[in-house]
Amino acid sequence: MSDKKIYLEESEIPTHWYNVVADMPNPPYPVLAPDGSPITPDALGAIFPEALIMQEVSRERWVEIPDEVREIYKLWRPSPLIRATRLEAALGTPAKIYYKYEGVSPAGSHKPNTAVPQAYYNREAGIRRLTTETGAGQWGSSLALVGQMFGIEVKVYMVKVSYDQKPFRRSMMQTWGATVIASPSDQTEAGRKILAEDANSPGSLGIAISEAVEEAASRSDTNYALGSVLNHVLLHQTVIGLEAKQQFAKVGDYPDMIFAPCGGGSNFGGVAFPFLADKANGKEVRLVAVEPASCPTLTRGHFAYDFGDAIGMTPLMMMYTLGHEFVPPGIHAGGLRYHGDSPLVSQLYNEGLIEAITVPQLATFDAGIQFARSEGIIPAPESNHAIRAVIDEALRCKESGEPKTLFFNLSGHGHFDMGSYDAYLAGKLEDFDYPAEAIAAALHHLPKV
Amino acid sequence: MSDKKIYLEESEIPTHWYNVVADMPNPPYPVLAPDGSPITPDALGAIFPEALIMQEVSRERWVEIPDEVREIYKLWRPSPLIRATRLEAALGTPAKIYYKYEGVSPAGSHKPNTAVPQAYYNREAGIRRLTTETGAGQWGSSLALVGQMFGIEVKVYMVKVSYDQKPFRRSMMQTWGATVIASPSDQTEAGRKILAEDANSPGSLGIAISEAVEEAASRSDTNYALGSVLNHVLLHQTVIGLEAKQQFAKVGDYPDMIFAPCGGGSNFGGVAFPFLADKANGKEVRLVAVEPASCPTLTRGHFAYDFGDAIGMTPLMMMYTLGHEFVPPGIHAGGLRYHGDSPLVSQLYNEGLIEAITVPQLATFDAGIQFARSEGIIPAPESNHAIRAVIDEALRCKESGEPKTLFFNLSGHGHFDMGSYDAYLAGKLEDFDYPAEAIAAALHHLPKV
Repeated sequence: MSDKKIYLEESEIPTHWYNVVADMPNPPYPVLAPDGSPITPDALGAIFPEALIMQEVSRERWVEIPDEVREIYKLWRPSPLIRATRLEAALGTPAKIYYKYEGVSPAGSHKPNTAVPQAYYNREAGIRRLTTETGAGQWGSSLALVGQMFGIEVKVYMVKVSYDQKPFRRSMMQTWGATVIASPSDQTEAGRKILAEDANSPGSLGIAISEAVEEAASRSDTNYALGSVLNHVLLHQTVIGLEAKQQFAKVGDYPDMIFAPCGGGSNFGGVAFPFLADKANGKEVRLVAVEPASCPTLTRGHFAYDFGDAIGMTPLMMMYTLGHEFVPPGIHAGGLRYHGDSPLVSQLYNEGLIEAITVPQLATFDAGIQFARSEGIIPAPESNHAIRAVIDEALRCKESGEPKTLFFNLSGHGHFDMGSYDAYLAGKLEDFDYPAEAIAAALHHLPKV
Repeated sequence: MSDKKIYLEESEIPTHWYNVVADMPNPPYPVLAPDGSPITPDALGAIFPEALIMQEVSRERWVEIPDEVREIYKLWRPSPLIRATRLEAALGTPAKIYYKYEGVSPAGSHKPNTAVPQAYYNREAGIRRLTTETGAGQWGSSLALVGQMFGIEVKVYMVKVSYDQKPFRRSMMQTWGATVIASPSDQTEAGRKILAEDANSPGSLGIAISEAVEEAASRSDTNYALGSVLNHVLLHQTVIGLEAKQQFAKVGDYPDMIFAPCGGGSNFGGVAFPFLADKANGKEVRLVAVEPASCPTLTRGHFAYDFGDAIGMTPLMMMYTLGHEFVPPGIHAGGLRYHGDSPLVSQLYNEGLIEAITVPQLATFDAGIQFARSEGIIPAPESNHAIRAVIDEALRCKESGEPKTLFFNLSGHGHFDMGSYDAYLAGKLEDFDYPAEAIAAALHHLPKV
């Protein structure tokens, strides 16, 4: 019988990341300062090292991966490409289903792929401390994991309600040596201001970002790190798709359709961009971003300049957005609850090079459970969005008899999300109606540029 | 640079399990009925299929692994052998440290290695339901994972206090389709009896075993499955050590010392027994079972006939025991809180073929955190026992300058044990004094045979 898992040698970990900007029909829109004026490199230099700023604006097709970064990637990479034979059999589909499993990283998701180089370039620039924010903790734990390895102190502002209610991701960060602070805190002006208004504030991702950025901007030994949205983050994540292409070549197959959940875009961009290069060379491959029905940024948002955060502190990016004031319903795929999207993913969608669809929450958990019962792995709620879309497509193939090759990114395991499975199995989860009014209101407050 | 992870092809998954009985200097002691009389095959046949009973008493060196079992092993096997280069560097030791990582299974530990064949042989025997007990949930989740794959309904009696306090392992079992019942329950005579005495009983592993065995014995379509201790369970786990031997051969190395935590013995037996075969052929290799200082079965117990459970319902086994009435202190490595030990491990220890040491709780967490900060993976508290012993030996090598090759089994990840890391980091864990009085009292009540 053929192999279930397709591995690469460690020597086959890509030597370069792929920069999709080189193959885009049009150059990216510039990032603007919060007031709409052109942004200065100095403004970014206060919180990012120069190497990352250069990657952010690079148009070179290939960016070399430093040896030390590849050496740490070896702790879990290359990640396996797995043929979902048991899921195929359970569905009775003629489609072939493959998934790349990024849950093998110590932090349990694809996020360390960018945490490693971000810590590396910061250390090279003489930075000894990094701040960041985290909600449920996927990104914070990834940065905590790698900070230790580069002798960088990591301070994570964790949204207070998660800090109190989800202590295990916090313990994970502390086990790796990070300092975790409940946000809002009394350690920053932004935090103190919020606490003065409401001493019991549960916090929000927007507030936590403000605190982390404020601390980084005010200390010369400290920078800030972000886990998605930005060009350099998506660049680092292309290691996923580049490995997958080699793995497909090993078994002489190639995907007809690729699916990934899409929140800030690093999961989707990481797996899809390297295949987009083939598409630019005439290859047929459909790239499908899967969004939650309750936070349909690409599918229902506007393509416009907007703030990356909820408060309006960050630079303005040209992207699909539901309005920075929009607060998505409390779905359990926290990583997909973002009002905006990666500018690169947004532009590619706007130019018709990629597709986007939405799936409702309950159907994603149903798909995740079907996957767990056939393939064993319990997926993260974010990943369940891609699984829902793949199962739906595989069932269409069953009807039409088409033996399509379907591929998705299983971005992480659900070991720290069993509370949401518990709620689903107990019938306590719900689908949310399309939040039409809230989105309309938020879109009304897009910044005028 | 050399590879960090040593993989095998799926075709290299062993075709046979290794039965250490064939290489033991003396045959195993017979199992006796609870009253001390020879046990009849019928008594075991009420709860185990014939194929497993035959494996339990087999003296054949090799037992073939069914193709269907190997096919399911491929979901995560072969597991990687990993060189702990970053830990070696952190310790500054000339020793080489390798670990086999069993946390790659969907259930997160080595337990599915035996859950798969147990479910297989039961299905082959026409059994459609399996009962078992679980404490923190490692074993229950492993059986839940595989039951689904063989069309077997799995019912897990979960100790009530864990059922209430650790809902995530329960959700995991339910996600895989198992029925999970808080024990004591009103579904068995044993459970009803306990509830009549104390309606708020928190339950215990002993009570849960009684409930699971009672249900299996009283229904012809239902059998019982156990996750450690018994000979056939250790037989199945030898897939770990057999793979490791192939992996060491690939890199031209061989361990001087092998470490594994030892509770019921399946972790230690699984990794160590295949190397014991080499030892029987004159090879130098030291096999070290690592016990918690508060539950020192091999190191401080008696080698005697005793019950496997706390109540005295099971057959009598010749093993090292602290007395079946001994209740180990509440250390966080729940899988090592067992009064007895595998009869095979016990006999080999009694004959001087293996060694045993103890380590105190706080030192194991300290070792686990040092491991996580260098190698990334956060280990299960049970695995931390082996890591403590390996780090101590590596530091001795640093003093002596000996470049020993050390190998341990990293039996599982700690994703469902972050509560114990949290308690440790908050300074809330303690070391327990050797429970001399409780053990002396329990040893006083060993059954007279």
